[in-house]
Amino acid sequence: MVTGRGDSGKLEWKVDIPGGKSETLVPESGFVCRIWRGLRGLVEGFLLKIWRFLEKAWGIGVDEPRKLVHCLKVGLALSAVSLFYYMRPLYDGVGGNAMWAVMTVVVVFEYTVGATLSKSINRIAATFLAGSLGIGIHWVASQSGERFEPIILGFSVFILAAVATFSRFVPSVKARFDYGASIFILTFSLVSVSGYRVEKLVGLAHNRLSTIAIGTSLCIIISMLFCPIWAGDELHSLITRNLEKLSDSLNGCVAEYFHQNGTVDSGGEDCSKKLRGYKCVLNSKATEDSMANFAIWEPAHGNFNFRHPWKQYLKLGASMRYCACCIEALNGCLDTEVEAPEFLKEHLQDVCMILSSCSSNVLKELMITMKTMRRSSKIHFFVGEMNSAVKDLQNGMKSLPTMLSVPPPDTVKGKPGTKTTIPPLMEVLPLATLVSLLIEIAARIEAIVNNIDELACLAEFKPAKDDKPKQNQSTITPISDDQDHETMTAIQKV
Amino acid sequence: MVTGRGDSGKLEWKVDIPGGKSETLVPESGFVCRIWRGLRGLVEGFLLKIWRFLEKAWGIGVDEPRKLVHCLKVGLALSAVSLFYYMRPLYDGVGGNAMWAVMTVVVVFEYTVGATLSKSINRIAATFLAGSLGIGIHWVASQSGERFEPIILGFSVFILAAVATFSRFVPSVKARFDYGASIFILTFSLVSVSGYRVEKLVGLAHNRLSTIAIGTSLCIIISMLFCPIWAGDELHSLITRNLEKLSDSLNGCVAEYFHQNGTVDSGGEDCSKKLRGYKCVLNSKATEDSMANFAIWEPAHGNFNFRHPWKQYLKLGASMRYCACCIEALNGCLDTEVEAPEFLKEHLQDVCMILSSCSSNVLKELMITMKTMRRSSKIHFFVGEMNSAVKDLQNGMKSLPTMLSVPPPDTVKGKPGTKTTIPPLMEVLPLATLVSLLIEIAARIEAIVNNIDELACLAEFKPAKDDKPKQNQSTITPISDDQDHETMTAIQKV
Repeated sequence: MVTGRGDSGKLEWKVDIPGGKSETLVPESGFVCRIWRGLRGLVEGFLLKIWRFLEKAWGIGVDEPRKLVHCLKVGLALSAVSLFYYMRPLYDGVGGNAMWAVMTVVVVFEYTVGATLSKSINRIAATFLAGSLGIGIHWVASQSGERFEPIILGFSVFILAAVATFSRFVPSVKARFDYGASIFILTFSLVSVSGYRVEKLVGLAHNRLSTIAIGTSLCIIISMLFCPIWAGDELHSLITRNLEKLSDSLNGCVAEYFHQNGTVDSGGEDCSKKLRGYKCVLNSKATEDSMANFAIWEPAHGNFNFRHPWKQYLKLGASMRYCACCIEALNGCLDTEVEAPEFLKEHLQDVCMILSSCSSNVLKELMITMKTMRRSSKIHFFVGEMNSAVKDLQNGMKSLPTMLSVPPPDTVKGKPGTKTTIPPLMEVLPLATLVSLLIEIAARIEAIVNNIDELACLAEFKPAKDDKPKQNQSTITPISDDQDHETMTAIQKV
Repeated sequence: MVTGRGDSGKLEWKVDIPGGKSETLVPESGFVCRIWRGLRGLVEGFLLKIWRFLEKAWGIGVDEPRKLVHCLKVGLALSAVSLFYYMRPLYDGVGGNAMWAVMTVVVVFEYTVGATLSKSINRIAATFLAGSLGIGIHWVASQSGERFEPIILGFSVFILAAVATFSRFVPSVKARFDYGASIFILTFSLVSVSGYRVEKLVGLAHNRLSTIAIGTSLCIIISMLFCPIWAGDELHSLITRNLEKLSDSLNGCVAEYFHQNGTVDSGGEDCSKKLRGYKCVLNSKATEDSMANFAIWEPAHGNFNFRHPWKQYLKLGASMRYCACCIEALNGCLDTEVEAPEFLKEHLQDVCMILSSCSSNVLKELMITMKTMRRSSKIHFFVGEMNSAVKDLQNGMKSLPTMLSVPPPDTVKGKPGTKTTIPPLMEVLPLATLVSLLIEIAARIEAIVNNIDELACLAEFKPAKDDKPKQNQSTITPISDDQDHETMTAIQKV
């Protein structure tokens, strides 16, 4: 039985349970209270979201303080140009020239110097071109009588806008003049449909162009003088970092397979991050492309000349992705449950580890070459070492089945059971794949070496220091402690 | 001997050669002629460049006529808005509201509806937000006396510009509100430093906002009504095409290895293009990301609801790239000179070809699922087929060494030479890699299947048609009809 009002006079629910006891269901909290809770939950959720966002932003700021510097630079440029025009409003504030200067700064100021330069030059050139053309068309239209004027204007806007828009689809235009095309359309439409007479327009255009020039020069000066961030530098160091990541991933991957837990697991999260480094390489195409496009606009800076072969970096990046693909496949194939027989693993472990560390060495040496922009005197030695490690591995494989299949003479007749030492191919599969992919990776690393050689020629890297590699005599694998020491000090000098 | 002036009175050079004959060096062509040639060369080179550019542009237009349509749409929108404001100049033409309408159309009109919508909404929201904030700050500054006014204004511009610029580095903001942030900075600076009184500003802001609204609505209407190009559609068909490319590449790759020249070479260039299809998959990340970002803004269209799970497409794309990586490695590994022994190749050819064609079938079926947006009744059957092909291949490998190593009884004593039938592991290497990578690819294809299953759930694909697959009887690995029926009903329950 359910009763409506309890002793206290408040609304409460009693439920008589057949067993005899009656329970009181007190409304836990009033209506207002519930709303309050709901609201509090909403606000808390919102605050939490904002908090997370701030945390993320803080992380970005801490990781890359240069981004913070860029923001301050934008703020500086913008308040400078704003205040300049605020203090001495040449025209009427909004709508006058001040606007164009402010707008130019907002739109043109980019993270890298190259991007800023590219946009600035695009903006000025496109404004000039479209302005002249617009004034011309405007004049033609105004001469042709009131009836034809709107037709000529509308038609010319239509045609030029369509053509300029289409040109943005052509990859070469898209890469360099995308912004210019859009500014061209904008300026042309504005000028050609404006209601002014041509004489006044010329004056206006002159003013506008000079304002834009002031805005862009301010941007260029600030972006080049205060902590400049060069697209070329970024591209160069991206490639350098990626070389290191490839090297780390390769080494880590192979070591993990052979359960070198001592070296792999000790690093914990940091180490698994290193293992996955190749994924960054796989995903860096878009960044490389845009950086190379911006770098072309940059003047000589640091070690880079004006005509530094930035295109070569794209080829280099492609060959690195090509190599990263193999590491990715390797990583996948080693994750199978099929375990190769222990003795086989042991037989091949050394040669595999040597090959992977030789390959890593080549990549590390390439990284040093890129970092110092100095040809390496040792790279060909390292490549030779890598190639002979490949040979060793191949020989190791060749000797393998004979070793396994020829049973000791006395067992031939009596115990054919020893035949079981021959592992079924299935069990060898991951190992064989590892070997095959390692060999393939070595080949792809050689392609990277060639690309960097080519880059060194084109960019005129400094000649190698004359510390001749003395490792020649003892090529293949046994790197003696002495030699190793030499290499180490060479690296440390760098 | 060299003489200066010849008989004709013209300058010419005679060289007396010791042998007795004298030769006359007539200047081949005059100075003017050479300049003429140089100029002609330049002009011809320039024309050739333009010609090539036009050819390329023509190619793009022919390949993707929708891009042409887009250009016409831009031209239409722009001449419409220009003429509208030209006919009835609400203010003073340039600098007045017409400018903002034209500018809005130029900047906001993008290739896909999603991009246009995203930019429009960003622009309106950011203008409104920044305008209100700017007017507020402007009022505060104007109340605080002439001395503090520029300080407050400059400082607020600095802070807000820096913060907004920084927010663009946060990936989630960058993906959706990049344009909004830049418009925010622009509007805020313009409003806060303008020389107007607050009352006039409010009126101006109102006008400006409505002009922008008119511009954006024109863009949205034109982009949605005339041959709309939906980012969602593009993304969906990109993924669908990529599935097909993966399928073709995989099949072609394996067939090429086994020298199925009949099927591979006959296609010629077209076929090698098909073989390299996986490269497109590897490089499509950037496009997928941006399309998914734009698609989020799109209203329901065609088969896609407003809240279509576009994020899932990114996961799907990632798993496809993951698979493409393996195909890329496969392609590399098969290019070695090491030839597996013919009999081994023959032994494995069938199982390998079956596995690759089963895998291709799964991919093709997935493609059909995506294309029709209808759950497939056969996909689980195909996956089962693929998995049993994997098992077959593994069994084939397992049986291999026994088959090879146990010599016929009578040869054990007499002819140990028959041992040579055991191929050295080295020769088996490419084949083993092929097998291993094929198995890995099958695993990765299953990941794709799972991703598409998930997508089908989230996007509520149409249920499967009830046409039972009749291929059951003619499979490689006899899945009995009963089992198949079980699978089928299981699927239908799901």
